[in-house]
Amino acid sequence: MQLVGVTKTKPTYEASIAIKEGMPLYTIDDKQLVAFEEQGLKVAGVLSDLLTKVDLVVDCTPNGVGEENKKLYEEAGVKAVFQGGEEHELAGLSFNAFSSYDQAQGRQWSRVVSCNTTGLIRTLYPLDRVFKIDESFAAIIRRGADPAESKGSALNAVEPSLHVPTHHGLDVKTVLPWLNISTMAVKVPTTNMHVHCIHAKLRKKGVKTSDVLSLWDQMPRIRFVSGKHGIRTSGQIMEIARDLGRHSGDFAETVVWEDGTHVAGDSLYYYQAVHQESDVIPENIDCIRSMMELEKDASRSIRKTDKSLGISK
Amino acid sequence: MQLVGVTKTKPTYEASIAIKEGMPLYTIDDKQLVAFEEQGLKVAGVLSDLLTKVDLVVDCTPNGVGEENKKLYEEAGVKAVFQGGEEHELAGLSFNAFSSYDQAQGRQWSRVVSCNTTGLIRTLYPLDRVFKIDESFAAIIRRGADPAESKGSALNAVEPSLHVPTHHGLDVKTVLPWLNISTMAVKVPTTNMHVHCIHAKLRKKGVKTSDVLSLWDQMPRIRFVSGKHGIRTSGQIMEIARDLGRHSGDFAETVVWEDGTHVAGDSLYYYQAVHQESDVIPENIDCIRSMMELEKDASRSIRKTDKSLGISK
Repeated sequence: MQLVGVTKTKPTYEASIAIKEGMPLYTIDDKQLVAFEEQGLKVAGVLSDLLTKVDLVVDCTPNGVGEENKKLYEEAGVKAVFQGGEEHELAGLSFNAFSSYDQAQGRQWSRVVSCNTTGLIRTLYPLDRVFKIDESFAAIIRRGADPAESKGSALNAVEPSLHVPTHHGLDVKTVLPWLNISTMAVKVPTTNMHVHCIHAKLRKKGVKTSDVLSLWDQMPRIRFVSGKHGIRTSGQIMEIARDLGRHSGDFAETVVWEDGTHVAGDSLYYYQAVHQESDVIPENIDCIRSMMELEKDASRSIRKTDKSLGISK
Repeated sequence: MQLVGVTKTKPTYEASIAIKEGMPLYTIDDKQLVAFEEQGLKVAGVLSDLLTKVDLVVDCTPNGVGEENKKLYEEAGVKAVFQGGEEHELAGLSFNAFSSYDQAQGRQWSRVVSCNTTGLIRTLYPLDRVFKIDESFAAIIRRGADPAESKGSALNAVEPSLHVPTHHGLDVKTVLPWLNISTMAVKVPTTNMHVHCIHAKLRKKGVKTSDVLSLWDQMPRIRFVSGKHGIRTSGQIMEIARDLGRHSGDFAETVVWEDGTHVAGDSLYYYQAVHQESDVIPENIDCIRSMMELEKDASRSIRKTDKSLGISK
């Protein structure tokens, strides 16, 4: 797998970092070239040049732009991975590496679902496979803005997503259509992670808390933290990422509180945290590998991706 | 009903406000008198003096202190209303005006449940009476600290209450033992209100969203806000309280988002906000009225209280 180039519409600091890191930089069209040149940023060409050199594009453009771009990819005969901001219908396949790897084999279009949806699927999919989920509900406590943003947050306030049940549950169903799930969401004044409060009713009788934890322990991309070991907040999880020397302070795994997980009767309760900026990165890499038919086996692809990102268990 | 006196352990600004407002001020014992005198605060006596003059004490002391104080009240032969920080067993009756008014008649001890518990009961109790609730779940997004506090908040972080299901559901059951409810909770960096994401399964078939809203509309102490009218956050609700000229900026009613309420099949979803500093005040007043047998009828007591507080519908 080879990175052929990256595109930027403006000569921002990310553009200069790309060049410093040796990534060929492209603009969208000729009109933008002057602005890049004025900043002393050497550009390798425009998007149409890039499309002649690649097999696949990971389209990380803002919501709705991917739909516009699809026509260009179609004309150029390249594959594309869209992100969760686009509609399921644009790609026809919504992707998670645990559940959708085989379906993406050789496809031209796929869509990697959003950070929250990815986080929900990672823990719910194995639960449903092994214990069956009769019904599940998640309250999503969303970060108000990303760390680098200076607006968008609910400053000293909690802001519910009023259209209930929220789209997050519906988005999980684009990947796992059979799963009975509904969601609600609020925005809060934090920047670092989303936190989920999840209540799932398990069909299998007699499941113990330890059974659930053992199952997740066997899965890649699920990490435990524990209040007993001093990790009580999403802020502290971000600190772990820094202390581990993770690139950009990212934490791509879904983080479950081991001592915040409890089975009572047929009800499972657990808290998990999702790093909105990074949890879909390994999913995108697996999605590319499947679409390009570079690897038939999902587990082998996941292992390869996780090793390259330094997030193997 | 007459306010005979208030107690303070230290000569804080609240003590001077009490005196300015004409409330007789008492300390706990003689040892504290000097400190009050040094601040020029005229003290009417100590707690034992006060207890000879009152029929009932509203004990708003920190968690656990009420248990100590109960012995004093017992010796003095006065009644007491404890707060949600104390155990149910201390009082034997956990109180909400909708559901427990009759049970409190003539009692010596009662306990008004906490702000979150009161907020949950106010909306769930009428739902359960009219439609029956088979099961309910609430995710409680708790304020990190009260507005005047400068520590205690989860600054730029979300902090789950790891002992799940949390005590809030169990506390609702001290008032409504038959209600099937479980809760989870997270602390977030806001100071103004708690927000609840509630999912309730209704037994009655064919209930419409409008049926639920009509029911709540008939209840005292439930107020609607609407995103359509620009009220999207808990911070904005606090602004309404200020604009209405409410004393101390309080909002004692439980606030439900009208357009954040939705019935789908047998599932009801809704968001509500709870002003942690004030929602139990009307409950305490009704509790006094019932314990002192000043009024037999719950609805009449609630109307009288709400009128005096300026929160009538």
